Amino acid sequence: MSSAAERAASLAQAARDGDRRSLARLLTEVENRTAAGEAALRELYAQAGRAHLVGITGAPGAGKSTLVAALVGEARRDGRPVAVLAVDPSSPITGGAILGDRVRMQLHASDADVFIRSMASRGHAGGLAGTTLGAAAVLDACGFALIFIETVGTGQSEVEVASVADTTVVVQAPEMGDEVQAIKAGLLEVADLVVVTKGDRPGAERAAAQLRAMLTVGAQHDRALGDRPRPKRPDVLLASGLTGAGLAGVLAALDRRAAARAEATPGDGPSPAELARAEAQVSGLLAERVAAHLRAPALADRRAQTLSAVAAHQLDPYTAADRLLELLAERRNG
Amino acid sequence: MSSAAERAASLAQAARDGDRRSLARLLTEVENRTAAGEAALRELYAQAGRAHLVGITGAPGAGKSTLVAALVGEARRDGRPVAVLAVDPSSPITGGAILGDRVRMQLHASDADVFIRSMASRGHAGGLAGTTLGAAAVLDACGFALIFIETVGTGQSEVEVASVADTTVVVQAPEMGDEVQAIKAGLLEVADLVVVTKGDRPGAERAAAQLRAMLTVGAQHDRALGDRPRPKRPDVLLASGLTGAGLAGVLAALDRRAAARAEATPGDGPSPAELARAEAQVSGLLAERVAAHLRAPALADRRAQTLSAVAAHQLDPYTAADRLLELLAERRNG
Repeated sequence: MSSAAERAASLAQAARDGDRRSLARLLTEVENRTAAGEAALRELYAQAGRAHLVGITGAPGAGKSTLVAALVGEARRDGRPVAVLAVDPSSPITGGAILGDRVRMQLHASDADVFIRSMASRGHAGGLAGTTLGAAAVLDACGFALIFIETVGTGQSEVEVASVADTTVVVQAPEMGDEVQAIKAGLLEVADLVVVTKGDRPGAERAAAQLRAMLTVGAQHDRALGDRPRPKRPDVLLASGLTGAGLAGVLAALDRRAAARAEATPGDGPSPAELARAEAQVSGLLAERVAAHLRAPALADRRAQTLSAVAAHQLDPYTAADRLLELLAERRNG
Repeated sequence: MSSAAERAASLAQAARDGDRRSLARLLTEVENRTAAGEAALRELYAQAGRAHLVGITGAPGAGKSTLVAALVGEARRDGRPVAVLAVDPSSPITGGAILGDRVRMQLHASDADVFIRSMASRGHAGGLAGTTLGAAAVLDACGFALIFIETVGTGQSEVEVASVADTTVVVQAPEMGDEVQAIKAGLLEVADLVVVTKGDRPGAERAAAQLRAMLTVGAQHDRALGDRPRPKRPDVLLASGLTGAGLAGVLAALDRRAAARAEATPGDGPSPAELARAEAQVSGLLAERVAAHLRAPALADRRAQTLSAVAAHQLDPYTAADRLLELLAERRNG
């Protein structure tokens, strides 16, 4: 057994036994794509697959972080362990994340059954899927049955999160104009549930009614389009992080979905969400492996020459891609 | 010569001779990843590489479309042909784009030296780079020396556009709060130029001053970090699409960058932007080719079985990725 594998095995064991510090370290290994992280994930993966992964998405300022913090509080009232993965795809250069949003989460910082983690998805060929799903599988194997995956900042991840979650919650502030942003971002199309936040404000009921009407029109429109893929028609709920109103209802709606999923699986094999997740995760890892092979010493020079020739317009990118594929194949047989 | 290649050659010839309808058709072929599109791009690629690709990015509502429309008008006053690629990564399911923004561009619809094209980047493994750079190369080869690449809606593309553009313009509305959104989205880090829009409004000067101060602090902070990659320190300019103030200044700043680039290239080989672009484009095509190989009849069943096993947590995703890589290598030698 290699030392990475040993380290991984002991971290994984301690994390599963409830040691939060080991869990945190393990997630760092997974996030940094270390050999120990990979080994641990290989080992833990068979124990994962039971958690309900809930994606929380929405335009910036919609109140995602506040809602997640409130839902965590609500779940803890029932004594349920909860994990939050805050995915920040934002900062590609310095890797700096704005941590203001996380401050709200400090409310739960001393609670061992709440595990909160910010992750950067930048810079990996695998993107959101690669980083987040690995971390989610670790948390899942460690007994967190409810895992919120929250997108921070703006990003394609707002839509991408739907491809990794069992249930996608789109968060909407009641202010005018937000509806349009959500449509622009294609968010309503990926929603399993829409939550209008700041439900204590005067305009919230009206915003929810508008969204319901919009979703009904959308559904009719889609029927008219015939056999094109049909977006889901999500429920629209109101919630207020301030007063706590509506939180229990949101949690109940999530639990109904989790229960339906648990009932549906045994005979039918993996759900579409599980298959999509597997595909996203494996594709991400595949892209990383391809990139790593091409950057390895054996191929790095020829890769750089090929890219320089494309940059100088001496070689077209299609021929270049074919050449790199040949290089990969040669290497595997060399 | 195959019929796709013939069709491609004749479209490419007509497009280069100035036939806009052929150019539009050619871009459709490129966007749809047809054999004719690939053949045309292979042929045209050697004639591309002269255009200045200007990425226009910013938070939703910052005024990107208005600024681009105004800059197009300004460039046309000098008689320069201009192209705009509006990249919409938004709608992954129905593919519907909100076209409201495009309406402003109708001002230029009857001008043959303005070419405007909306493109969806969704659904391709290559993402923004694959779609957009192919289209930009076609426009470039057809004589458009100034090409704006504008991101529509929210999306990772807001940052990603910087990896494909020679120059990245970050657009900021003067309203409070926007600065924070730009930082959240990591946008200031990728900016070569920041343009504060709605320059006619009272708060615009102050917003610009705040941004300048913020960028100065950022630069000092980065120096303190030592040898980490150093973000650029962009100029901050004011412009108003409404009054036209500042537009000439923005265009002049862009032209200075284009001139500097043209002077720098001959001896030095490709610029970092050109290399990054080549890498983004080739990586995108490579990912597409890998995905296509795995979905081809010879491998599709084994791919599906592998993904199902991962979804059922019978196989970990790392082993799955390795297995798919083996499949690829076998196929190339089978």
